[in-house]
Amino acid sequence: MKEGSFQQRYGHLRRLIDRRLASLVKHDQPRDLRDGLEHVLSAGGKRVRSTLLILSCKAVGGRTVDALNAGAAIEMMHNFTLVHDDIMDNAVERRGRPTVHIKWDVNNALLVGDVLLGIAYECLLKTRTRDLRRVVELFTEGLLEVCEGQGVDLAIEPKRHVTLSDYFKMIEKKTARMIGMSTEIGGLIGGATARQLQALRKFGHYLGRAFQVQDDLLDVVGEKRRLGKTIGGDIVEGKKTYLLLKAVEGARGKDRTVLARMMSHAGSASDTPRRKVKAVTDIYKRWGVIETARQQIQRDTRKATGALSGLPKNDATSMLCWFSELLVKRVS
Amino acid sequence: MKEGSFQQRYGHLRRLIDRRLASLVKHDQPRDLRDGLEHVLSAGGKRVRSTLLILSCKAVGGRTVDALNAGAAIEMMHNFTLVHDDIMDNAVERRGRPTVHIKWDVNNALLVGDVLLGIAYECLLKTRTRDLRRVVELFTEGLLEVCEGQGVDLAIEPKRHVTLSDYFKMIEKKTARMIGMSTEIGGLIGGATARQLQALRKFGHYLGRAFQVQDDLLDVVGEKRRLGKTIGGDIVEGKKTYLLLKAVEGARGKDRTVLARMMSHAGSASDTPRRKVKAVTDIYKRWGVIETARQQIQRDTRKATGALSGLPKNDATSMLCWFSELLVKRVS
Repeated sequence: MKEGSFQQRYGHLRRLIDRRLASLVKHDQPRDLRDGLEHVLSAGGKRVRSTLLILSCKAVGGRTVDALNAGAAIEMMHNFTLVHDDIMDNAVERRGRPTVHIKWDVNNALLVGDVLLGIAYECLLKTRTRDLRRVVELFTEGLLEVCEGQGVDLAIEPKRHVTLSDYFKMIEKKTARMIGMSTEIGGLIGGATARQLQALRKFGHYLGRAFQVQDDLLDVVGEKRRLGKTIGGDIVEGKKTYLLLKAVEGARGKDRTVLARMMSHAGSASDTPRRKVKAVTDIYKRWGVIETARQQIQRDTRKATGALSGLPKNDATSMLCWFSELLVKRVS
Repeated sequence: MKEGSFQQRYGHLRRLIDRRLASLVKHDQPRDLRDGLEHVLSAGGKRVRSTLLILSCKAVGGRTVDALNAGAAIEMMHNFTLVHDDIMDNAVERRGRPTVHIKWDVNNALLVGDVLLGIAYECLLKTRTRDLRRVVELFTEGLLEVCEGQGVDLAIEPKRHVTLSDYFKMIEKKTARMIGMSTEIGGLIGGATARQLQALRKFGHYLGRAFQVQDDLLDVVGEKRRLGKTIGGDIVEGKKTYLLLKAVEGARGKDRTVLARMMSHAGSASDTPRRKVKAVTDIYKRWGVIETARQQIQRDTRKATGALSGLPKNDATSMLCWFSELLVKRVS
């Protein structure tokens, strides 16, 4: 099947998911709560996790209709983490719109997040599958991992000495596990064999890692218009990204001193955010970490698509491969 | 069976539940997260919801061991709501100890709440029962109701005109539904018939209402030492309790003006908290609302225990009756 056709089918899937998500908000809820839920769910997004879940289900012989509720559930859970993480990180913008705690307040954002998680389970439980217990177990494991990952993130945020190994531990919990869970749940619903489930989990795991490093990279080389957020935001906040930690490992001399200041959130009082972004981006370029990040992404993507060889050869499996490459080629 | 024996068995059940709860905290979690979870789960409490769940299971022929995981799950979910509600209400104390967002910060409290909910599902999913889907569905309905109830609470909090009907709508979602869900899930696990389930739901519903009005009453007539919180706290905060709303309905003249000021959170600048508590308590006494609250509690408790006639006559059913009366006789 051709790329254009995959693109069309992806558009179709996204519309299906968006419609299902919109249908889950009840209209008799307290007004701020309902408006907050609609604000979050109408903001769009790539629907990466649900698309992967549905395609994984189809790759092993299942149908879209069987996986749609679980797909919507995973998007709900993902949005729950975004709303709560945005409170914790005090983020003001998400997908080009104010975050919930900015548009309303922390109380409403807290509650909107909690309700998103409740609706996620409600929706997941509508799934018709042989082993619902296992599906809900996996979903819950994913929830706990992503929360723990956020806990690790909060714990390393104020630390001066953070290594790439800490970073991978964190993103494995925050991103890779959730994507691996999406592909595995899709497989379970589609009736995958144990070997196919293992392949799907491996695929999701490496794709999740690649996806997160790509996210870090886009903060440096992306375009604001397409990302819906300000470029260099991670640098301004001194976030411990793949690029920063890799640069700290490699850089020497004055560049190393500048990066050490970034790690301790000290910075120079005379630095404007713009100058800070330029200075750090230049260091990244000088020490080749942008290229290293690209290689890391390629390596993990290859491992991910390699795992697809354990699945039946069909249109959905080809589309999973196409989708993986689309994700890691985003605007970079 | 005698009262002393019920008291002993209740003590035994509480220890079983406390031990199960303590066993659910993992030790490889980020430190603040783990300490926060232990802080919450070691604070004790009456374990009302889990005790009701387990006794309901036994009343229809089930065993304690079959209901213990679901009981622990319900306590976890209850504690999740407490931790998040305490952030929203900016409460500083709970069960005589600092709340999580006070002892740590809002970020950790947010995350501790989220993880409590995740562990709740994890624990619930260990339940061996004929219809796990229905058990998890009920649990999720309860979660959504309690969140919506908190939404209603936040929405009516700044309003001047709140009626008793608003109040009952709120507590039905925040308290009665959760207790009705506990007894219903217990029944499901114990293999209850449809009629028995209906009786258990009705029992929990009315007991939950009685329990909440009793909670409001204890703020006025309770003892700090036994409650672990300051008496008159609701009055100082201008919380819309059963007593305040009933007094607003009935009082006339100057008393009505004082209560109207309370409803709008204005108060008099010269009022110390102590004087405010005394003034409002005196109004409650003058207009007989303390007595009215007691009657309301008795009426709902009678409806609750009346519903128990739909259950088999056995020790567990008798203990449910004993426990209901114990709950609404707390120190008042």
